[in-house]
Formats: sequence, structure tokens, C-alpha cells
Amino acid sequence: DISSSDRALVEQVSRVVEQAKELQDLSASLISRTSREEDSLRQRANSLNSSIHSLRSSIRKSNLLLDSTLAEKLEEELFRARYLLNEGDAAAFLPSKSHGRFLRMFLGPINVRANRKDVQLKVKEEYNSFRDRTAYLFLFFPLLLIVLRSWIWNGCLPALPVQLYQAWLLYLYTGLALRENILRVNGSDIRPWWIYHHYFAMAMALISLTWEIERGPDCAQKQKGVLLYLKWAIMQGIAMLLQNRYQRQRLYTRIALGKAGRMDVVWGETAGVEGQLWLLCPILFILQGFEAYVGLLLLKTAFLGVISEWQVITCGILLIIMAVGNFANTVQTLVTKSRV
Amino acid sequence: DISSSDRALVEQVSRVVEQAKELQDLSASLISRTSREEDSLRQRANSLNSSIHSLRSSIRKSNLLLDSTLAEKLEEELFRARYLLNEGDAAAFLPSKSHGRFLRMFLGPINVRANRKDVQLKVKEEYNSFRDRTAYLFLFFPLLLIVLRSWIWNGCLPALPVQLYQAWLLYLYTGLALRENILRVNGSDIRPWWIYHHYFAMAMALISLTWEIERGPDCAQKQKGVLLYLKWAIMQGIAMLLQNRYQRQRLYTRIALGKAGRMDVVWGETAGVEGQLWLLCPILFILQGFEAYVGLLLLKTAFLGVISEWQVITCGILLIIMAVGNFANTVQTLVTKSRV
Ligand SMILES: CC(C)(COP(=O)(O)OP(=O)(O)OC[C@H]1O[C@@H](n2cnc3c(N)ncnc32)[C@H](O)[C@@H]1OP(=O)(O)O)[C@@H](O)C(=O)NCCC(=O)NCCS
Ligand SMILES: CC(C)(COP(=O)(O)OP(=O)(O)OC[C@H]1O[C@@H](n2cnc3c(N)ncnc32)[C@H](O)[C@@H]1OP(=O)(O)O)[C@@H](O)C(=O)NCCC(=O)NCCS
Repeated sequence: DISSSDRALVEQVSRVVEQAKELQDLSASLISRTSREEDSLRQRANSLNSSIHSLRSSIRKSNLLLDSTLAEKLEEELFRARYLLNEGDAAAFLPSKSHGRFLRMFLGPINVRANRKDVQLKVKEEYNSFRDRTAYLFLFFPLLLIVLRSWIWNGCLPALPVQLYQAWLLYLYTGLALRENILRVNGSDIRPWWIYHHYFAMAMALISLTWEIERGPDCAQKQKGVLLYLKWAIMQGIAMLLQNRYQRQRLYTRIALGKAGRMDVVWGETAGVEGQLWLLCPILFILQGFEAYVGLLLLKTAFLGVISEWQVITCGILLIIMAVGNFANTVQTLVTKSRV
Repeated sequence: DISSSDRALVEQVSRVVEQAKELQDLSASLISRTSREEDSLRQRANSLNSSIHSLRSSIRKSNLLLDSTLAEKLEEELFRARYLLNEGDAAAFLPSKSHGRFLRMFLGPINVRANRKDVQLKVKEEYNSFRDRTAYLFLFFPLLLIVLRSWIWNGCLPALPVQLYQAWLLYLYTGLALRENILRVNGSDIRPWWIYHHYFAMAMALISLTWEIERGPDCAQKQKGVLLYLKWAIMQGIAMLLQNRYQRQRLYTRIALGKAGRMDVVWGETAGVEGQLWLLCPILFILQGFEAYVGLLLLKTAFLGVISEWQVITCGILLIIMAVGNFANTVQTLVTKSRV
């Protein structure tokens, strides 16, 4: 003898319980079915990948025997197959580059790989726009510090603003290194060096935080190291802006080609952007030279005894390592590109 | 008139091209089908979630009219439905807690949510073991510094080891904050305060890096602040170890229940661990008291003019904020638990 409204309530509750069970079953079956199907695609992608590789090498080996136009045609077809596999939706099922220690150190064993190509491209786009935003700050902060130094602070930087700037740099490089590692897991071909380069920059920012900002009468002399560091940072900002412009265009070309589904025009992929690269590189080389120069100056101030903190020496060495590595890797990139 | 081996090659190449196209189609269709099915499950999970909520409130409202045993039974059934929805496989399709600014700042818009419950539990387990490993280091490093200070360094800490330790702390807190944000996205009910607490600790580690480690004859006096900081760190290590033991047992209970599929025994979930909590909390309160005390001592040294750096004052204030927040949130956790 429960009222009709109560009865309705009882019915609704049991319906909800029913629905919850049903939803649980549906979810469990979708998840297990999807993971099974993904496993099978993963196997197929793997075996296709290795057949492409072995076919390529057997074509190369029998190159002398084959008709050269035929060999070329076969290579082209294989290239197309490889491109489809690596750049299409199937790429999600190829083994990903390993997570790397850095990501595991900060995030643990979480999966950061996106299955869908459009999501991957969005991540890359966001990375580019993050770089864009920071490149301007990169120019702005050290410029501001240098200007205020002569206008307001009478040639003597106070510690706090410099340290705030250095803390920002540390955050920035950590963020860049994390994002680049994530991009790598998502199939980017970024050279490991560009990521290591950000580890070195992180180390430099951390070290510079412990660097004592001298006060007192002879601070102008003692702050030479900091000032050099700021000038290098401005240069880095310029390099970043130029590089961003180039990378953005490269990405847009790729997205446009992807959207148009014109996987076959990959040859010409960078054609429109190639020209820019030859313009960008001389500027990069000059900046890299300046980077090494700043490193040497830091070492000089340290060894002449003006400032003798270990921080100055270490930063000098790090700058020189970065300059040499950047130069070597830029050259290698150019060599690889001109060979294709 | 190509040779038979050439013909075989040509055939193999065209087969590979065929396979690549096929795999591309299969991948594309799996990805789009899965995302369609996930969308529909997402809708169902959402609407079920809101019907559970509205039913609960209508039962509560008509509480006076309903037979009390009936009302209790209905509430229990609803609880079961809610538990199934929130803790089962369907949970993957409930809207996740938003990513939060912190994760976006460091990682960009990447998805860190695991669909599968066992993966989520693995992430949590790894977080616990990360905490375990670090808790020992947390005890070890400051102890080592304090011991070496009186044994080798004649009461005067050198800067480099302390700064290395502080850099390690900064890394550690950043890692913890990132991991906890990831756990939250994966459905953990962690109170926001425990994450904010790590943001404060990050700020403190960063600030302490810029803290000048005094040298010279009266360093013992001037290093009072650093020494207090180290003592607090040892306390923090003890708190972490105790907390870890408790949290690990909680997780194992949960995993065991999950594996046994005994979703219905959720009531007793923490029963075995509850006792431990009442043992843990007094110790936590003592540690929190000590935390506030260290904060006050830092402020005192600053205001008595022994050390007058802004870093000391800020760290003092941060410690007091953390102590008060930790206390308030521990009490709230206890109140919530005793109410259930
Ligand atoms: C030399 C350079 C312009 C070549 O760029 P590129 O043409 O894109 O090079 P690649 O074709 O080898 O790029 C492969 C991938 O790595 C990425 N990449 C290349 N250089 C990168 C860098 N410095 N940082 C981050 N990603 C980079 C590209 O975006 C591309 O990603 P994708 O596979 O997801 O599309 C570029 O590497 C560069 O500007 N480097 C920095 C130079 C420097 O020294 N800066 C500091 C001066 S002080
Ligand atoms: C008080 C305390 C023991 C309660 O722990 P609890 O019983 O797990 O609390 P809850 O039931 O509210 O936990 C809900 C969730 O938050 C997590 N959580 C609770 N406190 C946490 C903390 N301090 N850090 C990280 N995660 C925490 C739990 O693991 C649980 O996660 P789950 O949903 O994935 O299972 C715990 O919060 C604690 O130890 N806090 C730190 C106390 C402190 O002040 N330390 C510093 C002293 S100097």
C-alpha cells in the first residue's frame, strides 16, 4: 500500500540501476573490443612497415640488374606506401618513439600519444603558438631590464627583477622540453639535439638563479656576466621569432596537403618553404656565433678574476656547448635536406 | 621482357601499396567508428548521471512521506548505481575534471586521461611508489647536510650542496604537482588544497634558491634560516612516509575490491584503513604545528634583524599558510569521513 508517486519513484530507481548496469556492460565491451582491434591493426602496421623496409633494400641491392626507370618507379611507389603508413591514420598504430626519461621523470608512465591525426596536428599548432607568444616576451623582458638599468637603476641591476626573469626562463624551458618530448611521442621528427638544447638551457636558468646579483659601488663591473647573459637572451628571442615564422609555414603547408588528401605531392612538401630556409640559416649561424662569443666572454671575465663564481664558468661552458651543437645540427639538417 | 625475379619484385611492391591503402582505410574507419561510439556512450553516461542526481534529490525531498526503510533501500540502490557509473568502465565516458591551468601551462592541450580503469590504477600506483622513493631521499638529504655541517664544515654550510638540494626539491614538487593534476583528470578525488600546497612548496623551493648562503665568520648566526628550513624538510619527510603507508593500503584495498568485482561492498571500503587514519592524524597535527612554528621562527629571525632578506620573510609566511591550510584540510577530511 504505497502511494502511486512512491511507486513511480521505485520504478524510476530500478530503471536507473538497470541503465547503470547496461552502460557498464556497453562500456566494458567497447573498451575491450577497441583494444583488440587496435592490437590487430598494430600488428598489421608493424609487418607492413618491415616489408616496406626489406623491399626497399632489395630494390637497392638489385639496382644494377633492374631497369633504372623501373627501379625508380618502384621506389616511388614504395615511398608513397611509406608516406601513407607514416602520415595517415595508420600511423597511430605504429610503435611510438619511447617516452624518454624526461617525460617519465616529470609525469610518470602516463600515455601522451593522441590517436587521431587532427589532434596531433592541433598539439603541434599549439606548440607553435606557445613559442610565438613566448618569443615576444623573450625579447621584451631582457630589453626592459637593460633599459631600466640605465634609466632608473643607475647602471646597477637589482636582484629581484633579474631573478623573476630567470625563474620565468626556467619555467619556459621546462615547458618547451616537456612539449617537445610529447611531440616526439606523437610522431614528430624533431632531432634529439633540439630537446637536449633545452635541457642545457634549463640547467643554465637554474644556475643563474643561484648567481649572486652584486650590489654596491663596483656593481657595474661585477654585473658584466649578467649583462652578457641578457644580451644573449635578446638574440635568442630574435632567433626564435624567425624560426617560428618558418616552422609555422611548414606546418600550414603540411596541414593544407593533409586536408586536401594529396598525399602524393609529398615530394614538393617543403618546396615553398625551402627558400626561406636558405635565408634563415645565415642568420642562425650569426646568432650561433654570437652565442659562442658570449660564452667565451663569460669565461674570460671569470678567468680574469673580475667575477670568480663557478656559476659564471659553468654558464660560459654551457653556452659554448649549445652554440657548437646548434651549429652542427643546423648544418646536418641542411645536408639531409639537400640530399633528398 | 623483365626477368622473373624483377616481376616478383614488381608484384611485391604493388601488394605492399595495396596493403598500405587497405590499412589506411581500416585505421580511419576504426578511429571514426570508435569516436562515434564513444560519443554516444558519453551522452548516455551524462544523462544517467543527471537522472541519478535528480532522483536522489526527489527521494530526499519526499523523505517525510516515504516509508523510511523504503527510502533507505532506494538510496542504497541509487548509491550502487552511482558507484557503478563512477568507478566502473563507464567512468571513462563521464566528463573529466577540467585540465586546469597548471597542466596546460606545462604540457599544452594534450589529453592525459586514460580510458581504462586498470591503467588509471597503474598511474596511481606509480604515483605512490614515486612518493615512496622520494620520501626516503627527503629524509636523507637534509639529514646529510646537517650532519656534514657539524662534522666536516665546522658549523657553516657551503652554498653548492644546499643549492643542489633546493633544485632537487623544486624538481620534486613540480613533478608531484604535475602528477597530482594528472590523477585528478583521471578521476581522483584529491582535494584541490593538496595540489595548491605543492604549488606553494614549489614557490618556496624557487625562492630558497635565490637565498644567499652566507659565508664568513658569523655564518652560523646568519644560516639560522637555512637550518630551520632543513629541519622542516626532515619533518616533511616523516609525514610523507607515514602518509604513504596509509595511502598505499587504501589503494590496495580498492584494487582488491575492484578485482573481485565486489562493487557492492563499497561501504566498507576504508573500514580496514580507517583505524590507521585516527593514528596518523595526531602525528600529522604535530607536524603541522611544527611547520607553523618554523614559519614563525623564520619571521622572528627576519624581524630581529639577524637576516633581513625578503626570501626569509616570504618563506616564513608561506610555511604558515601551508600549515594552516594543511590543518584545515585534514580536519575537513576527518569530518567528511566521520559523517559518511
Ligand atoms: C635549422 C632549422 C631551421 C631546421 O628546421 P626544419 O626545416 O623544421 O628541420 P627538420 O625538417 O629537420 O624538422 C623535423 C622536425 O623537427 C622540428 N624542429 C626542427 N627544429 C626544431 C627546433 N629547434 N625546435 C623544435 N622543433 C624543431 C620540426 O618542426 C619538424 O617537426 P615535425 O616532424 O613535427 O614536422 C631549425 O632546426 C632551427 O631553427 N633550429 C634552431 C637553430 C638555433 O640554433 N637556434 C638558436 C640560435 S641562438
Ligand atoms: C589527511 C589524509 C591522511 C587523508 O587522506 P585520505 O583518507 O586519502 O583522504 P581522502 O579520502 O579525502 O582522499 C581522496 C583522494 O585524495 C588523495 N589524497 C588525499 N590526501 C592527499 C595528499 N596529501 N596528497 C595527494 N593525494 C592525496 C587520496 O589518495 C584519494 O585519492 P583517490 O580518489 O584517487 O583514491 C591526507 O590528506 C594527508 O595525509 N594529507 C597531508 C597532511 C599534511 O599536512 N602533510 C604535511 C605535514 S608537514
